[in-house]
Amino acid sequence: VTSGDNNLCFSRINELQGSVGTITRPTLILDAGRTKLNIACMIRRAADAGVRFRPHFKTHQSAAVGEWFRHAGVSCITVSSLEMARYFADTGWDDITVAFPVNLRQMDLINQLAGQIRLGLLVDHPEALTFLAKHLEHQATIWIKVDAGYGRTGVDWQDQRLASGLARQIAASDRMQFGGLLSHSGHSYSADRLDQLQQIHDESITRLRRLGDQIAAKDLGTCPISIGDTPTCSRVDRLGDADEIRPGNFVFYDLMQLAHGICRREEISLALACPIVCKYPSRNEIVICGGAIHLSKESLTATDGRRCFGQLAQWNPEGFTVSETAPPLTSLSQEHGVVSLPAEQQAQLQIGDLVLVIPVHSCLTAQQFGSYTTLQGKQLERFRP
Amino acid sequence: VTSGDNNLCFSRINELQGSVGTITRPTLILDAGRTKLNIACMIRRAADAGVRFRPHFKTHQSAAVGEWFRHAGVSCITVSSLEMARYFADTGWDDITVAFPVNLRQMDLINQLAGQIRLGLLVDHPEALTFLAKHLEHQATIWIKVDAGYGRTGVDWQDQRLASGLARQIAASDRMQFGGLLSHSGHSYSADRLDQLQQIHDESITRLRRLGDQIAAKDLGTCPISIGDTPTCSRVDRLGDADEIRPGNFVFYDLMQLAHGICRREEISLALACPIVCKYPSRNEIVICGGAIHLSKESLTATDGRRCFGQLAQWNPEGFTVSETAPPLTSLSQEHGVVSLPAEQQAQLQIGDLVLVIPVHSCLTAQQFGSYTTLQGKQLERFRP
Repeated sequence: VTSGDNNLCFSRINELQGSVGTITRPTLILDAGRTKLNIACMIRRAADAGVRFRPHFKTHQSAAVGEWFRHAGVSCITVSSLEMARYFADTGWDDITVAFPVNLRQMDLINQLAGQIRLGLLVDHPEALTFLAKHLEHQATIWIKVDAGYGRTGVDWQDQRLASGLARQIAASDRMQFGGLLSHSGHSYSADRLDQLQQIHDESITRLRRLGDQIAAKDLGTCPISIGDTPTCSRVDRLGDADEIRPGNFVFYDLMQLAHGICRREEISLALACPIVCKYPSRNEIVICGGAIHLSKESLTATDGRRCFGQLAQWNPEGFTVSETAPPLTSLSQEHGVVSLPAEQQAQLQIGDLVLVIPVHSCLTAQQFGSYTTLQGKQLERFRP
Repeated sequence: VTSGDNNLCFSRINELQGSVGTITRPTLILDAGRTKLNIACMIRRAADAGVRFRPHFKTHQSAAVGEWFRHAGVSCITVSSLEMARYFADTGWDDITVAFPVNLRQMDLINQLAGQIRLGLLVDHPEALTFLAKHLEHQATIWIKVDAGYGRTGVDWQDQRLASGLARQIAASDRMQFGGLLSHSGHSYSADRLDQLQQIHDESITRLRRLGDQIAAKDLGTCPISIGDTPTCSRVDRLGDADEIRPGNFVFYDLMQLAHGICRREEISLALACPIVCKYPSRNEIVICGGAIHLSKESLTATDGRRCFGQLAQWNPEGFTVSETAPPLTSLSQEHGVVSLPAEQQAQLQIGDLVLVIPVHSCLTAQQFGSYTTLQGKQLERFRP
């Protein structure tokens, strides 16, 4: 299939090498080279800014992808659950922060991990610290989670009294080492311009530093600042105002990051291969095996007001890419994906051909699968709880 | 925790018997008794209407729940993928329709299954039949998928010419046995009143019968009609105008079905147990470990215009239930769920307590897990591809 039309794509994936060509059902396709470039680029940004790089592994959740980070010199990581910490500890990572408010029902697992690795935990409430002080059997690093403006979790950045109380609780326990203040500026995902993003970053840092100065002077020695979101870490100036960064999504990026100007098209490194199961030229739609259980129901609103649940990628010898006018997935049900595709382009496709879909949110799409297939046809295992 | 307030709920689940009380992370909780009642009720509706009952197993995807159907006299089933057909064939089901447009890339699996069980496949395009006619090694039952108004997949109900062509292709192959016309009226999910639902049902049946008469007279013997959606199968009169019904969601129901008046509160039999990880009395919110990767991002719009991603259930000695004013989940991120909960109710809860969440869409929530835990603490395996 070749054409001068930029929208054309698709079925040459049928002819790919290795096991890619023998795919029978929705399958995650990973461009390993591009992923390694994304990793190298973020390592360089962190090094240039002089901040510690503690990448979030919840996006890829793969021991094999983790090795690419390790070979690039990364030695500490972030995860989003204690089970995920267990998985990566078993593959040799020994400095792991669980960047999710600590789940006290998993105290046994906390103690197992704390006895084995340098384990970081997040708290924002005295109840959690009281429980940990009583039940921790080994040293753990405790971060105070701070809400610097996002409004989801954490001590309000203005609540010096609560933060100081938490700091005193930490200082009073010989099992707890203070990590610092940790924040996730998730509202950066809705910034539409770089200056808005920069403003969110600067404001967050100012708020965190102010709170840090207040509690450190009274209760603790120094107060490192850890921040996390991919938009900020990918694009802002003055990243070095933080002490540590924890981005995750940058490893693959996706349509959401592209839509907000955070990544370039050629940086998106994850796609979903889906078989075509129906063609409807009269209504300019095809249906693929690829639905909510594969892509998640995360969506963007397109310029024409329609919801977009993914877009078809073009295939070229260097890999896949998504053009500005790439055919969108306009609706998803449990297993079906409806793609808006003009009849003349359908004529070149057969039922049973594969198409590649770029996901809206790569974290949620990858979550649905137990492995990745690289463009070279290699299988990479992925953690499944 | 006891109170006169209907909204109170929650932490008595901590004291439940068996393994329920030892839950550490988001876990599917199944009320087995209620599920069996839902099964018995739908069997009775099918029997009263004189239609064949071929329940869709994509909602539960569990061999153990399948046994409850078998013990109640069910002998034929529906699934949504060939892998799922393989799973249930391996547990003794020998009459399975894969109610998803046939995925031609899985021809090997099709032949394996067709050699072992009575396998039903769906087609709506001559290309698929040409491929099947060439590659089928055993008898298979072929259903023509018809779009009777929903607009997702299937031959348009007015396209007699296409349907007749497909019927002739089927008649010409000695490997293909004609099953009939199969439709899924997914637009029934947006019907807000019973009369709208009845109208969708009656209209679909009229359209399917008309098309069936047109092609059967010319090309085939009889033309059975199979319909599928839970709203129709749960509520309409004249169900017997079809020959076969394939509902799936009814086995658990959920908030979406409740919102449309399809089920009663006490028929919802699936919930998700989630640990509380944060409390924010000043903003009347708590945060639970229970996010998009557990519940899916399916949402409803509440009467106050806010999106609702689930609601907290109350616990009582008979099981769980969800009141009209039950606290809603107002936002979800990857692992976090934010619950709107007044400060005075938070005072009775501790970080680390469990709450039960009723999902918006039980099919998508169940899909995220590999097992169910019954109220008695028994583990039931679930298929994971």
